[in-house]
Amino acid sequence: MADGNKPRRRGGGRAGAAHRRGTAAIEQMPWRVPVNTDRPTEPLGADGVQAIHDGAMRILEEIGIEFLNEEALAIFKEAGCTVNGTNVRMGRDWVMEMLGHAPEQFDITPRNPDKKIAMGGKHILFGNVSSPPNYYDLEIGKKVSGSRAQCANLLRLTQYFNCIHFAGGYPVEPVDVHASVRHLDVVYDKMTLTDKVAHAYSLGKERVEDVMEMVKIAGGLSEEDFASKPHMYTNINSTSPLKHDVPMIDGCLRCVRRGQAVIVTPFTLAGAMAPVTMTGAVTLSIAEAISAIALFQYVRPGAPCVIGTFTSNVDMKSGAPAFGTPEYMRATQITGQMARFYGLPMRASGVCAANVPDGQAMWETSNSLWSAVQSGTNVVYHAAGWLEGGLIASPEKFVMDCEVIQMIQRYMEPQIVATGPNDIAIEAIKEVGPNGHFFGIEHTQKRYEEAFYQPFVSDWRNFEAWEAAGGIWTAERAHRTFKDIIAQFEEPPMGVAVKEELKDFVARRKAEGGAPTDF
Amino acid sequence: MADGNKPRRRGGGRAGAAHRRGTAAIEQMPWRVPVNTDRPTEPLGADGVQAIHDGAMRILEEIGIEFLNEEALAIFKEAGCTVNGTNVRMGRDWVMEMLGHAPEQFDITPRNPDKKIAMGGKHILFGNVSSPPNYYDLEIGKKVSGSRAQCANLLRLTQYFNCIHFAGGYPVEPVDVHASVRHLDVVYDKMTLTDKVAHAYSLGKERVEDVMEMVKIAGGLSEEDFASKPHMYTNINSTSPLKHDVPMIDGCLRCVRRGQAVIVTPFTLAGAMAPVTMTGAVTLSIAEAISAIALFQYVRPGAPCVIGTFTSNVDMKSGAPAFGTPEYMRATQITGQMARFYGLPMRASGVCAANVPDGQAMWETSNSLWSAVQSGTNVVYHAAGWLEGGLIASPEKFVMDCEVIQMIQRYMEPQIVATGPNDIAIEAIKEVGPNGHFFGIEHTQKRYEEAFYQPFVSDWRNFEAWEAAGGIWTAERAHRTFKDIIAQFEEPPMGVAVKEELKDFVARRKAEGGAPTDF
Repeated sequence: MADGNKPRRRGGGRAGAAHRRGTAAIEQMPWRVPVNTDRPTEPLGADGVQAIHDGAMRILEEIGIEFLNEEALAIFKEAGCTVNGTNVRMGRDWVMEMLGHAPEQFDITPRNPDKKIAMGGKHILFGNVSSPPNYYDLEIGKKVSGSRAQCANLLRLTQYFNCIHFAGGYPVEPVDVHASVRHLDVVYDKMTLTDKVAHAYSLGKERVEDVMEMVKIAGGLSEEDFASKPHMYTNINSTSPLKHDVPMIDGCLRCVRRGQAVIVTPFTLAGAMAPVTMTGAVTLSIAEAISAIALFQYVRPGAPCVIGTFTSNVDMKSGAPAFGTPEYMRATQITGQMARFYGLPMRASGVCAANVPDGQAMWETSNSLWSAVQSGTNVVYHAAGWLEGGLIASPEKFVMDCEVIQMIQRYMEPQIVATGPNDIAIEAIKEVGPNGHFFGIEHTQKRYEEAFYQPFVSDWRNFEAWEAAGGIWTAERAHRTFKDIIAQFEEPPMGVAVKEELKDFVARRKAEGGAPTDF
Repeated sequence: MADGNKPRRRGGGRAGAAHRRGTAAIEQMPWRVPVNTDRPTEPLGADGVQAIHDGAMRILEEIGIEFLNEEALAIFKEAGCTVNGTNVRMGRDWVMEMLGHAPEQFDITPRNPDKKIAMGGKHILFGNVSSPPNYYDLEIGKKVSGSRAQCANLLRLTQYFNCIHFAGGYPVEPVDVHASVRHLDVVYDKMTLTDKVAHAYSLGKERVEDVMEMVKIAGGLSEEDFASKPHMYTNINSTSPLKHDVPMIDGCLRCVRRGQAVIVTPFTLAGAMAPVTMTGAVTLSIAEAISAIALFQYVRPGAPCVIGTFTSNVDMKSGAPAFGTPEYMRATQITGQMARFYGLPMRASGVCAANVPDGQAMWETSNSLWSAVQSGTNVVYHAAGWLEGGLIASPEKFVMDCEVIQMIQRYMEPQIVATGPNDIAIEAIKEVGPNGHFFGIEHTQKRYEEAFYQPFVSDWRNFEAWEAAGGIWTAERAHRTFKDIIAQFEEPPMGVAVKEELKDFVARRKAEGGAPTDF
């Protein structure tokens, strides 16, 4: 049997592409913060929304959430909640009052103010894959532990693609850097290789506060400037079922008190750490998320908070998590309904269970990305580069995902669906008549360049032309694009003094021992 | 560089799967006609719908459509339309009166009445790829002209997959059978290898009427039974811009007069045979489609008709058609709005420009299939097996597409979003508490088997387990599934006498010379 997956028969096909592109690795759409005007897909009626709300409130009132963080327990006590050991029960009136303080939309401003992003409303933002411990690319050809060099390359992709709006956590965990100083090296790389909104892991005081300091240095901000509005964010997960751990809540409290943004994302896998029913898993997720958001609103009314969803299901056969499933899509849509009910911006993800950047990877990721669009999601985490349920980061997958994300952004451009007289184009139809062709007429020529989406890794040539250029399958085309981008990558501008100050900060904090590693 | 696309390192991995499945090639969902309860995505407001309607009416009133078919011209004249040579202009009042006769929903009943399908309303149906002249599979490893054997295998897939509801045109054109008798051999194969609703090409009197006779023989139907309700259908394309040719209209008239269904699908490629603006291309498509449907409603008020869309855009670089683009998705959604405006069932497609069953193929196809769902499409043509803009049929792509289609069907099952007390599952959450796991509890165990979608070609194992089983990429897994299905395929039951009668009919019609080949 011929190996249909083995692509290269001839070497060619790049000269033309290089000529077409000039010196840029690819032609891409400009930076923009897309507005999703589609009416969300809402599987639940008002009764269903009320059922989940009531369920979440009953969890908070009757069962309670475990907060392992002492400071949080003291605050809940002060607020009048019922605290028994680590168990916190809270009344729905108080919860709803607290959620009422939360903004429906807020901005985060990174060191380059042109890359400011709006979280909430009808905006939709996309970020890189975050936190996989492993890396896979076609050149290595196997799964390996992540390194700082790989992490830096994925940060370069994060910066390069205009359709990626923010830098998430480490795009791959650089296991070759000691955990005590890893955050210093990676955030240094992130600050110098990107100028987009950055993230801090809530894994102990030092890690969060070091990132805040480095964001301040990179942006040339005083403490007052920094705390005046969001410049970065953290994202935490609850320990489902029903628990928030010590460092995650600690990191959020540090961010909230200094005016920075927090995303609270339970990971409720139906049939494992959540009920086997999808609406039950969503109800648990909602209760866990809003218990923490209520705390943050009590501490700082109006604190910028986002409710996250990471509700999926297990594989019935293996117990492994599955992603981009029909159940995942519905859970995401339902969470969108709940986020709007509570008036909170929402986070979802671009995810798959596939192990390599192939067909399965793309249908699962497409399902998850389209469910983000359908649900009115504002922040799409892991949108580019994710494989193996988040255990692998892949640069080829990153490039391929960016094609899908760009198409989603293009899909949201209102001019595609304009219906003015020149769009309906009766005069052009009259002019061409039944025997002509539209290509040559002025109506077409005036609009041609901007009329249609233009891909950078999709190959739209016919089979013969594609084959003559080497017959390259998508994953390998993406690999070449990845290499081209890295080869031509230019760091975003940063003043020499700022860079020195960042370096000095890293050196000093390393000399101090970095951060504890007892998490 | 390691070749990441080359999959096979070890041979194993099938024993477990075979054990799991028993003797069936795969475990799949049962036959069902899914109901799409999602509110359609509607990019246009009422003004936009009115603008396209008005544009389409102005085309019909001011520009006219060319009908090359003499019989149609005579009917239009009789109906009071303005006929100048082949140009037919028709007033909007008459058009809307005719469309008012068309049913919003109707059934088609094939030889196996259990495979009856409902076209229209909220139903969504999926059919196989139709009419590619070429074939590609991983064993052959290149693009080749289609053959009867390949066509028969694709018909076996069409029958095998419960998520495929009807048999479209030839799933690949069997170029090894002479065009004069090709329809006889392929329809014989279709009648014996499938028991699903069948299609006739409108390519001259003989081809349409031979299919009708064979459908009658296969179903044991008298002419009166046959004509009493739809048992098969034809699908035609206009010759955009602004033209309907002779045989397509002829075939439709033959179907309509004998109570059979017709689908009218203009192919309006924006920037080529239609305006460069997407709403202009849709307007032209609507005008072309409803001019023919109005004719059929005049001939037989209440005739079962479907309005099709095949509006996409060209590649700005090569002029080649592009599919599954953002523009394609919006055009499909807008056509859905127009179909509901006119009260007609709607057809769209599952399409891509990719040449091989890889990542690009699946994101483009996912885009097109999700836009079918979002648009409220009732009939999804080419939903499985399509490559290279419809020039290649691929069995691997067929299998991969069926996974996506099954997920869409599962997505539409209402139990996923149920919100009764046992779904919200407060008692289960109480029972498990903050330190437990949901897997072992009764609430989970009672629901586990049916709770989640179960894939047949997606591999949800972790990387290590996947690698140990050979590290097989999706396209090759699909190839193996294809081979398994063909090896174990059993023809649907058909009486010996019926089969003999079909054979005799084919032999007689071949002896008579089949059909003219001057199309």
